Amino acid sequence: MEETIRSMAYQAKVASRRLAAAGTAQKNLALERLCDQLVADKAHIQAENGRDVEAARKNGLSPAMVDRLTLSDKVMHAMIQGVREVMQLPDPVGSIRDMVLRPSGIQVGRMRIPLGVIAMIYESRPNVTVDAAALCLKAGNAVILRGGSEAFYSNRVLAETIQKALNDAGLPEEAVQVLPMTDREALPFLLQQEESIDLVIPRGGEGLIRFVTENSRIPVLKHYKGVCHIFVDADADFGKALPILLNAKCQRPGVCNALETLLVHEKVAAEFLPLAARALTEAGVRLRGCPRTCALVEAEAATEADWPAEYLDLILAVKVVDSLDAAMAHISQYNSGHTESIITENWGRALRFIREVDASAVMVNASTRFNDGGELGLGAEIGISTSKLHAYGPMGLVELTTEKFVVFGDGQVRA
Amino acid sequence: MEETIRSMAYQAKVASRRLAAAGTAQKNLALERLCDQLVADKAHIQAENGRDVEAARKNGLSPAMVDRLTLSDKVMHAMIQGVREVMQLPDPVGSIRDMVLRPSGIQVGRMRIPLGVIAMIYESRPNVTVDAAALCLKAGNAVILRGGSEAFYSNRVLAETIQKALNDAGLPEEAVQVLPMTDREALPFLLQQEESIDLVIPRGGEGLIRFVTENSRIPVLKHYKGVCHIFVDADADFGKALPILLNAKCQRPGVCNALETLLVHEKVAAEFLPLAARALTEAGVRLRGCPRTCALVEAEAATEADWPAEYLDLILAVKVVDSLDAAMAHISQYNSGHTESIITENWGRALRFIREVDASAVMVNASTRFNDGGELGLGAEIGISTSKLHAYGPMGLVELTTEKFVVFGDGQVRA
Repeated sequence: MEETIRSMAYQAKVASRRLAAAGTAQKNLALERLCDQLVADKAHIQAENGRDVEAARKNGLSPAMVDRLTLSDKVMHAMIQGVREVMQLPDPVGSIRDMVLRPSGIQVGRMRIPLGVIAMIYESRPNVTVDAAALCLKAGNAVILRGGSEAFYSNRVLAETIQKALNDAGLPEEAVQVLPMTDREALPFLLQQEESIDLVIPRGGEGLIRFVTENSRIPVLKHYKGVCHIFVDADADFGKALPILLNAKCQRPGVCNALETLLVHEKVAAEFLPLAARALTEAGVRLRGCPRTCALVEAEAATEADWPAEYLDLILAVKVVDSLDAAMAHISQYNSGHTESIITENWGRALRFIREVDASAVMVNASTRFNDGGELGLGAEIGISTSKLHAYGPMGLVELTTEKFVVFGDGQVRA
Repeated sequence: MEETIRSMAYQAKVASRRLAAAGTAQKNLALERLCDQLVADKAHIQAENGRDVEAARKNGLSPAMVDRLTLSDKVMHAMIQGVREVMQLPDPVGSIRDMVLRPSGIQVGRMRIPLGVIAMIYESRPNVTVDAAALCLKAGNAVILRGGSEAFYSNRVLAETIQKALNDAGLPEEAVQVLPMTDREALPFLLQQEESIDLVIPRGGEGLIRFVTENSRIPVLKHYKGVCHIFVDADADFGKALPILLNAKCQRPGVCNALETLLVHEKVAAEFLPLAARALTEAGVRLRGCPRTCALVEAEAATEADWPAEYLDLILAVKVVDSLDAAMAHISQYNSGHTESIITENWGRALRFIREVDASAVMVNASTRFNDGGELGLGAEIGISTSKLHAYGPMGLVELTTEKFVVFGDGQVRA
């Protein structure tokens, strides 16, 4: 097993050199062929996917899990649409910035280049296979995909489809490989191929991500969870606060940029909380409040476990705080580095919040739901990083590349 | 021991928040006070350093090691000068770039922020303690320094000096801490404080760096070694090639950007190699050549072990190659991602080399010795990364920071 994995990683490295030298037109051709192939092979792909779905049902997986696994017509359509979007994104590779002339006479700039080989480790959704392959390919990287065991047949057939498209475009098939081993025992071998693999991106539950971090010698970009806060300041405009609150909590409660804790300044708590509680309750949200919250509105008493909780559900922790400083201290203690928003019309406090809060996205008068590659202007995203190295926040095409120095000389030597 | 390390890391994290909010003036004040303090405490620092030097002599350390350990007047002066240079560098923290207006109405930009807490792990030179502290501090980071056991007293007194300066400037002393444990057994505990520490930078021998990479749950920026090549192309101007070759190999053979392997195009080998061999031999360089090289000039026969070798000495491996492609294939097989240079007047081949060679710095007609933070325009550097994530090449102040997204809204919710 170890030998197979090492060999796959090495072949990916060899393929990555050809991909790095490939032009935009050739990479886009591969993506176009992939769309065509996904349309042409749809019935076959869905049949293979059916084997996974059937097994999942037999094994008693939850309906939600079975749903995530199913490559329905709608999911297939969205997948193809996603590839077309990646095709239309500008190619970040090859641009040179800041070409300054140094006192020594050399001209120095930074050229954007692919990272090399990326390993994606994820759980059930087989559409991630195509999404990730398209993004890695467009950024000039080879990729090794390791999906969940529930999606074995789906991922295998999708990998074949992608490899056909690469082949049609004259690119090496080893640029996109699916790891045939889906058990966790195989992972440490993959995570030790630091000679061949440049970056690991795990997507999934906290257990998987911790396992990857603890076993990897390769740099890992990850996010554990999103414990996002909104602070309704003393000078909040309720006309903005209420729609933002509802949007952040209720639009898609199961995602990482959804709101988990509401902080309210004590000066406006008595006025704002009853309005907020009514609107939230109507939307089906249950509240877990601090003592001051519970004195103002109907809410279950919050325990210490509620403040760091990522509910991913229609539950909201609520706390009344004395000041901006108290709000920021709470955020600094419990936040996950994901998304934090202040609702205020006060310029000075907005500026302090922006400057002092440490999270991948810090917002004023906007819904936390905006922390997303598409919304922030990156195009499609491969994940959201709450690590600070290399990328902090949504990772798009540019975050799948790096920069090298280029030096144009004419015989210069160092003094 | 584990508890002490966890507590130090946590205190560094708390201090990092105050440092992140500190303005440029306050950070510069701390650096100015540090210069004053280093001048005032010079005799005391040198006395403490003397204890390390004496122990080193008693323990039979090599004269070169003792030399690296000694805080002579010259080293003290250079150290103080280094802090003054960091003071004068522009503060990267707080700038916001690319503040675009998105279709949703939110304004989105990226704000540069400190990384948080950095752990520096290094070997004998105690001046690294001050250099690293100054750079981390200016970038708004707290730092935990772990020097070698040979420099225990030197590092302890330098840490006290730095903490006095921090205190004078109203900044928390915990922003710069020296780990009192210098044995390798303590390292794994430090490398598991991923809740508090954001980045680990090891500097030293390959053994130390591998140990850190294999034991760290925290992202690591490192470089193992510099196996730098110069390719003298068929269209090389010898008037540029010879001085560059001598500069790259002989100016400071013991550093990572020094030349280790010379590749020569077969078309010019018969003419260039005798000239090069004469000049190099006069400069005291011994050659290890491929068979074709040995047929043209006096050289020891190279073995397979010579191609990946980092000699750090006046030894040079030499190989005759058939073409640019053969040169790039050799580089791709043996390079360490550090520095690669082509000597040519041919535009097309220069451009291919620039685009296709994967190294932190790729050069045309320039000495590999230019791969240095000062020479490339970054100011002082904390090391050179041959990892591709986050930083590739010299790491200056900017590389000790990251970016977060900032979103200016006026009530926007996600559609």
